[in-house]
Amino acid sequence: MESRLINDLKKIVGEQNILTSKEDLLCYAYDATPGFSHMPEAVVSPADTDEVSRVLILANNEKIPVYPRGSGTNLSAGTVPTKGGIVLLMTRFNKIIEVDDANLVAIAEPGVIVAELNKAVEEFGLIYPPDPGTVTTATLGGTVSENAGGLRGLKYGVSKHYVMGLEVVLADGSILKTGGKNVKDVAGYDLTKLFTGAEGTLGVITRIIVKLVPAPEAKKSMMAIFSNLDNAGKAIAAIIASKVIPATLEILDNATIRTVEDYAKVGLPIEAEAVLLIEVDGIPEVVEKEAAKVTEVLKANHADKIQVAQDAAERDKIWAARRAALPALAKLRPTTFTEDATVPRSKVPDMIRAVNQAAAKYNVTIGTFGHAGDGNLHPTIVCDLRDKAEMERVYQAMDEIFTTAIRLGGTLSGEHGIGLGKLKYMEDQFGAVGIRTMRTIKKALDPNCILNPGKLVGEC
Amino acid sequence: MESRLINDLKKIVGEQNILTSKEDLLCYAYDATPGFSHMPEAVVSPADTDEVSRVLILANNEKIPVYPRGSGTNLSAGTVPTKGGIVLLMTRFNKIIEVDDANLVAIAEPGVIVAELNKAVEEFGLIYPPDPGTVTTATLGGTVSENAGGLRGLKYGVSKHYVMGLEVVLADGSILKTGGKNVKDVAGYDLTKLFTGAEGTLGVITRIIVKLVPAPEAKKSMMAIFSNLDNAGKAIAAIIASKVIPATLEILDNATIRTVEDYAKVGLPIEAEAVLLIEVDGIPEVVEKEAAKVTEVLKANHADKIQVAQDAAERDKIWAARRAALPALAKLRPTTFTEDATVPRSKVPDMIRAVNQAAAKYNVTIGTFGHAGDGNLHPTIVCDLRDKAEMERVYQAMDEIFTTAIRLGGTLSGEHGIGLGKLKYMEDQFGAVGIRTMRTIKKALDPNCILNPGKLVGEC
Repeated sequence: MESRLINDLKKIVGEQNILTSKEDLLCYAYDATPGFSHMPEAVVSPADTDEVSRVLILANNEKIPVYPRGSGTNLSAGTVPTKGGIVLLMTRFNKIIEVDDANLVAIAEPGVIVAELNKAVEEFGLIYPPDPGTVTTATLGGTVSENAGGLRGLKYGVSKHYVMGLEVVLADGSILKTGGKNVKDVAGYDLTKLFTGAEGTLGVITRIIVKLVPAPEAKKSMMAIFSNLDNAGKAIAAIIASKVIPATLEILDNATIRTVEDYAKVGLPIEAEAVLLIEVDGIPEVVEKEAAKVTEVLKANHADKIQVAQDAAERDKIWAARRAALPALAKLRPTTFTEDATVPRSKVPDMIRAVNQAAAKYNVTIGTFGHAGDGNLHPTIVCDLRDKAEMERVYQAMDEIFTTAIRLGGTLSGEHGIGLGKLKYMEDQFGAVGIRTMRTIKKALDPNCILNPGKLVGEC
Repeated sequence: MESRLINDLKKIVGEQNILTSKEDLLCYAYDATPGFSHMPEAVVSPADTDEVSRVLILANNEKIPVYPRGSGTNLSAGTVPTKGGIVLLMTRFNKIIEVDDANLVAIAEPGVIVAELNKAVEEFGLIYPPDPGTVTTATLGGTVSENAGGLRGLKYGVSKHYVMGLEVVLADGSILKTGGKNVKDVAGYDLTKLFTGAEGTLGVITRIIVKLVPAPEAKKSMMAIFSNLDNAGKAIAAIIASKVIPATLEILDNATIRTVEDYAKVGLPIEAEAVLLIEVDGIPEVVEKEAAKVTEVLKANHADKIQVAQDAAERDKIWAARRAALPALAKLRPTTFTEDATVPRSKVPDMIRAVNQAAAKYNVTIGTFGHAGDGNLHPTIVCDLRDKAEMERVYQAMDEIFTTAIRLGGTLSGEHGIGLGKLKYMEDQFGAVGIRTMRTIKKALDPNCILNPGKLVGEC
C-alpha cells in the first residue's frame, strides 16, 4: 500500500492504531482455519463508527480490500486477508452500551467478548444463548457475522435468532441502522438478518442489539452409551418426537470415544458406537419431567447404559467427555479441521456412516462429534498440513463429506460460515440461481467489492 | 393490456385460469385496507412454479406489473394493483406437500389456508404458531409475505420466525430455492428472511418450508381490570421481569372496553382504563406455576379485579371480550382502519396515551387494543371514508400515531407490513440510508420494477 494511503489512514485512526511492520502483519495473516493465510498491508483499529466510515470511504475510493476482524477465531477462513489491503480490527469497539431488562435486550459494540456480555446480563437473571466453544475469546461482532452457534443450538438457535438490530457501515461509508428493540418488527426488508451472517462481505457492523432470554432455573444432564449407532440415531429422533426439546443433545462417534478415552480417561467404553450427552433446562418441575421422559426414550431405544447426573460434580463429569472431544482429537496430529456439515436431524446416522466411509476410503483420521439434536455434526479431520499426499486425501474426504451433506438435504454450515473454506461447494447447495442472487446483492451493496472480497460468494 | 398479451397468458395458464371481465377484475381491485383500490388488467391463476416462471418472463419482457395475491386479507394495501397489470392469484397452489414430524417441519404451497395447515399438523401434536385474526381465510403465502403475527406473538413470534426455506420465482423467471429442513443453517446470505416479509416486491413465493413446534399440553387464561392505565403498563413490564413469557398478553383501552361492553355485554366495567388478558401455556406444572406468578404480579401492581379461568367455558368468556374488540369497534362507523404501530414493550402506556391524545386533538374515534406484551398495539380508527373533512383529520391522527411510535423507538409494523398504507413514514423510521439500501436491493433483484411496484420501498 502506498505510504500516502498509510498516512491517510493514520490521520483517521491515529498513528498508534495502525500496524504496518512485517511481524505485526503476520499475526493477522491467518485465523483459526488451517491451510489459509495471506499478509495484509495494514491493520487498522478504528475507535468509533465515524472512523470506520472514513476508512471505508478511503478504501472504496482507492479500491483497497477491507477485512473486518474480531478475535480471529473463525473456522472458515472468513477473516484471512487473501487479497492484501486492510485488516479492520474491531477490538476497540468493546463497550456494552445498555442492558435493558424491561425489554429483554442488550446493546453492545462488536468487539465485546461474548462471555463478557453474558457476565453483564447474568446479574439480571438473563442469558445471551449463543455459546460457541470460543465464547471466552470470540467477539460478538465476529460471532454475529459468522452466525456462530454452540451447544445450546437445538433449543436456543444460533446468533441470527438473537440479533434484533444493527448499525452497519456500508462500503461507501454511509451508516445504516436496522431493527431495534421491538419484539415484533416486520417493517421493510429484513436487513438485520441480511447483514447477520454476511461474514463482513456487505458492511462493517459497529453496533448490535441482541435479544436476551431468562436464564433457566434448573438443568439436568444425562449420558447414554449405545453399542449400535442406529439405535442412537433412533433415540435422537424419538426424543424430539416425544415433544422434548433438550437444550443440548450431543453425540460422540466411536473414533471420538476412543480418542477421548485415551486422552482423558473418563470411563467411556471404547467399543461403543455412540455416546449421547443430553441436557434439559427450564423450571425445576419441567426439568424433572423432561429428564424422566428422555431416560424412558433412551431405554426404549436400547441404550446400553444411562447415567443421570445427580449433582453439579456428576454433571461436570458428563460434560468433560464432550469438552475433551476437540482437544483429544487435535492432539493426535499437527493439523485439525473442524467442519460443520449439517443435515436434517433424521439423517444424523446416515451422515455419521458417510463420514466413516470417507475416512476409510481416503485413509484419513476423522472423529465425528457434535450437535446431533439439530443435525449439526463436527467431522474433525486430523492430519499434517505439511504432508502433501495426505492433504490431497484429506481434501477429497472433505469433498465427499460436504457433497453427502447436501445430498441428504443438509447445509454446508450449521454455525461456522462459508468464508473461503467451503466456497467451492456453494453452487452445489444453492444452484446457479442461488449464487447469482447472492452475488447480485453483494455487487449492489458493494460495487467495488472491497468488503472481505472473494469470501462467501466468491469473486464478484 | 393488449389482446396479444392476454392470449400469451392464456397459452401459459389455460383460458379458464385468466379473468379479464370488468366485474371479475373489480373483485381484485382492493384488499382489506380501506381507501385503496385500482383495477387490474388481468387476474391470472397459475397451476405450478413453471407457469409462474413463464408469466414472469412475459411480464418482465413486456414490463407489465405483477401483484402476487392470496386471499387479499392484508391490512396495508399490499395487494392492491395500483399500476394495473396482472394480479397473480396463487390460490391454486393449495397443496400441503409434507408434514415431517421427525424434523418438525412442514412443506406447503403458498395458497394453503393457514388454518388448514394447522389442522394437518395437529394430528402430529404440533402447531404452526402464527395465528392472525384472519387465520381461517388468509393463505400461508400471504401471511409469509406480509410477516403476519397474531395473539401468540409474544412467546412465539411472527411468520418470519417459522419460515425455514422458500422456493421463489424471481422477476426474470428464474427459480430460486433457499433454506431447507435444517434447524441450524447459516450458509450464505439469509435469502429466506429477505424474501419473507418482502410483500411480493422481490419475487413470487411458490413453496414454503415452515418450522413446527410441539402443541402446548395445557393453557391457562386470566383477565385483570385496572382503573389506572399506568398500573396496567407496570404490570406488563413486571410480568416479563418476573421471567414469565406468556403466550398471549393483550390489552384493551377504555374506548375499546366501552365499545365491547356496549356490543357484547361481557361484564366489563366501563370506567376501567385498561383490561389485560393473559394466557400462559406449556406443560401443566409450568402453567400452574406461571399462572400463580402472573396473578401475584397483577395484584402487586394494583389490578382492581383478577379473574382466572377455571375451565374451558370460563376461558372462552375471557377471550370473548378480546374477540369482540374489532367487530365492536367496526360496527360503530362504516370504515375501520386497524393499524399496528409497535413500540418496545416498556413504552406501551406512553403509546396508548399518545393515541388517546391524537383522538382528542383531531376529533376522531380510536379504540386501542392489541398485543401489549410485545408492544404491538392496534389503534383502530373508525370513521366514514365518504366524509372528506373527517378523513383529513383521520389521516392527521394516523400521521401522529406513527410518528410517535417511531419517536418511542418503535416500528411502523408489528405484523401487517408496509404496503402502500405506511409508505410515507418509511424514511422516518429507516432514514435515507435505510431506504436507499432497500431500494438498491429491490432494483438489483427486479431491475424493471415489475413485482408489486410502488409498494414497501415506493417508486424505484
